[in-house]
Amino acid sequence: MNLPIVMRTLGILLLCEAAAMLLPVLVALFYGDNVVLSFLLSVLLAFAAGLVFFSVKVRDNTVGYREGFAIVAFGWLLASVFGALPFFFSGAVSSYVDALFETISGFSTTGATVIPDVEALPNSILFWRSFTHWLGGMGILVLALAIQPALGVGGAFRIMKAESPGPISAKLTPRLRDTAKLLYYIYLVMTVLCVAFLDAGGMPLFDSVVHAFATLGTGGFSVKNASIGAYNNTYYDVVITVFMILAGINFSLYYLAFKQKSPREFLRDEETRIYLAIIAVYTLVIAVNINGTVFSNVLTSLRYAAFQVASVITTTGYATADFNLWPELSRVLLVTLMLIGACAGSTGGGMKVIRVHLIFKYIKREINRLIHPRAVKAIKVNDTVIPETVIANVMGYSLLYILIIILGTVLLLTQKLDAISAMTAVASSLGNIGPGLGLVAPSKTFYPLTDFAKLFLSFCMIVGRLEIYTVLALLFPQFWRK
Amino acid sequence: MNLPIVMRTLGILLLCEAAAMLLPVLVALFYGDNVVLSFLLSVLLAFAAGLVFFSVKVRDNTVGYREGFAIVAFGWLLASVFGALPFFFSGAVSSYVDALFETISGFSTTGATVIPDVEALPNSILFWRSFTHWLGGMGILVLALAIQPALGVGGAFRIMKAESPGPISAKLTPRLRDTAKLLYYIYLVMTVLCVAFLDAGGMPLFDSVVHAFATLGTGGFSVKNASIGAYNNTYYDVVITVFMILAGINFSLYYLAFKQKSPREFLRDEETRIYLAIIAVYTLVIAVNINGTVFSNVLTSLRYAAFQVASVITTTGYATADFNLWPELSRVLLVTLMLIGACAGSTGGGMKVIRVHLIFKYIKREINRLIHPRAVKAIKVNDTVIPETVIANVMGYSLLYILIIILGTVLLLTQKLDAISAMTAVASSLGNIGPGLGLVAPSKTFYPLTDFAKLFLSFCMIVGRLEIYTVLALLFPQFWRK
Repeated sequence: MNLPIVMRTLGILLLCEAAAMLLPVLVALFYGDNVVLSFLLSVLLAFAAGLVFFSVKVRDNTVGYREGFAIVAFGWLLASVFGALPFFFSGAVSSYVDALFETISGFSTTGATVIPDVEALPNSILFWRSFTHWLGGMGILVLALAIQPALGVGGAFRIMKAESPGPISAKLTPRLRDTAKLLYYIYLVMTVLCVAFLDAGGMPLFDSVVHAFATLGTGGFSVKNASIGAYNNTYYDVVITVFMILAGINFSLYYLAFKQKSPREFLRDEETRIYLAIIAVYTLVIAVNINGTVFSNVLTSLRYAAFQVASVITTTGYATADFNLWPELSRVLLVTLMLIGACAGSTGGGMKVIRVHLIFKYIKREINRLIHPRAVKAIKVNDTVIPETVIANVMGYSLLYILIIILGTVLLLTQKLDAISAMTAVASSLGNIGPGLGLVAPSKTFYPLTDFAKLFLSFCMIVGRLEIYTVLALLFPQFWRK
Repeated sequence: MNLPIVMRTLGILLLCEAAAMLLPVLVALFYGDNVVLSFLLSVLLAFAAGLVFFSVKVRDNTVGYREGFAIVAFGWLLASVFGALPFFFSGAVSSYVDALFETISGFSTTGATVIPDVEALPNSILFWRSFTHWLGGMGILVLALAIQPALGVGGAFRIMKAESPGPISAKLTPRLRDTAKLLYYIYLVMTVLCVAFLDAGGMPLFDSVVHAFATLGTGGFSVKNASIGAYNNTYYDVVITVFMILAGINFSLYYLAFKQKSPREFLRDEETRIYLAIIAVYTLVIAVNINGTVFSNVLTSLRYAAFQVASVITTTGYATADFNLWPELSRVLLVTLMLIGACAGSTGGGMKVIRVHLIFKYIKREINRLIHPRAVKAIKVNDTVIPETVIANVMGYSLLYILIIILGTVLLLTQKLDAISAMTAVASSLGNIGPGLGLVAPSKTFYPLTDFAKLFLSFCMIVGRLEIYTVLALLFPQFWRK
């Protein structure tokens, strides 16, 4: 393990985070919030730690597989440890464990909260809370890469691969640093558009900004206790539904569509087509299921169904209705959406549409093999053959994903949770969604859970955000052996 | 498709079934049951249909992959259609759908029942009901093969492979017919031993026989409404626990242990070691969990925990306690056991210990591949390399298994069932276990379910017993294409 380069990269990350925390200081000064010192102290600590890490002497700047994993996993942990400080110092939460939970939930774009009354918090704290979504959505290390002096050949790629969701990584431009910048640029433009649309419809500017952060990052933190439902505004619901769906699409497609000057790029992509089809079918089925029982009007049913479906499949976790109170069919359908998740290369979580798609193709091939034992065809997506190593990785990933949910559920049952609450809490944390069912329903918070449950779910959030393998590899003794 | 050989083999199967139904006729005559005519009519119909199928002219007796699948899938369907007749004619159930559910539950060794009061039934009906477990346990076609004149090269093997559980088929003796006979012989000896042990402890002979059928077949039908719990007898509980565990072990190991005159064969087998370890660990954890809350005594807790663990992992489905009323942790642990199931090549169901073991080995290899991308090692079990095609088959199987449970749960939610009841009903049927949780708890029956739910769950039982692929292949258009 090339420890110096790992530490130096972590140092850059912490310096970036210190800089990012200066933004809420401005917000605090603007609104006259009484928490400026809490933020400045946090900035100071992150800056000091960043300097210490950064000052490590680096002789060899090669980043191999192991270094890539270590940088990403420890990077997320460190960023959360320091990002939690403002919540803790300002007294927004009641303990450091709660602060850590909230921050990891933020960076991982989960959006599960331990704060029962967010409306009582100062604006600067709310800003930082939502800003963690935005930073974590595209990747905190991708951001650090965008400004970092070049690493050795392949190093930046390895870090980006370990942090970016999906089984296949796109290399948009030959220089990784340019790709990282480009992705953040697209992301920024879409965020600004979302703010503009919300603000134009009458949402206060501050609310528009923080909700745009959480929408594009598919996070789900709101500044209202009743989430987006608090506004009860059809226009906001529609705008946010559309932007959530857009944030769940692979961001490299935006680059391609822009470069080719053709929106057809989206529909030429198999994963996007399936993703949109799933949203359409689920919205219709759930709308039919809740129409007449929960809502009396077809259009209202469609509006609420579409919002909740988009919120869950993109793993945002906003709510305009408490789907825990919906009929059992709708509830379980939403749980299946939690498993599927958004597209690879988006800011969303879950297993990702492409993986579920590959599972179906894999099963179909296995059945074909029974009928024609000698003819084993390669699996293709977008007319490109997917290498068997990627297929094996996806199958292992999917089984591991389900295994973690099962084992996590069993573990949480020792923490005074019932089966449905425990299972959906784990699935929701691992998929970076936010709410679950039962005790962790959209109308409730994670506040009453035990510290052990909160720490375990925080761990699940990072594991889910970094797509399991990155974190798991570090837990294997082979990883540390020479 | 070589239809003539398919029909002829199905004919032999029906003739065997007609002969098997003569046994309950003897029981009816002995006990003076008023249902002799119901059985004779059923025998006549099965015999007539068998003759018609058998009289088909066969020019070519090759059985290929497709013919093997077709024989097994349609064989199970036909055997159930005719096996249901005695229940229907005698009025033991209220509809033919119920009769079919009960019979498929019997042959597939599931043991889920639609008869709320089994104690009111005549002995001959109860005998036939439990006898279906015994016949289905080792395989109704394996039985037919044991007496059938030789098929073309590989034909009998293909049928046996399609019917026998587990990813790898053992070929004990060079001649398949001898293997089939041998397996049934071992099975018979163990059944007689179980009868002897139960009878020696004071259980009435009739009860001992039917319970031995259901124990060795890992079925679960009882002649008591409260299952084995009705006796409240520690000795019976211990005997049945031991025989259930024995029935969950790969039967070819009994042959090897007998031939090598060494019981070490069992412990040399990786799957058996893991299977026994799982039973031990689960029994301990559940005993601790229920001790003090459900039972006040450590030994009692151990006795009930061991019985229920053995009953669920071997997918027998007997009950001495209503585990639906146990603490949530024990309930969920039992659900995870439902998924695991017994050993391959046993009479038990579920995903099978060996598959779960291979999943863990596969995931471990994938993580290793991340650390050492160039070193991909073969997966070994019992020091033998498992071919990659088998691994691929197991991964596809496992994902398909979970997929069916998820989709089946969603489907059953349209049938007035809650999520836990729906999910455990599907998992229990697919794993050939019997009871689930909630509305299908051990203390309840499947009687109140809708006809659609009963037919769907019956389908799941056959799909589970034939290990999914055999049935699924038939649903693909490619299967029928030239």
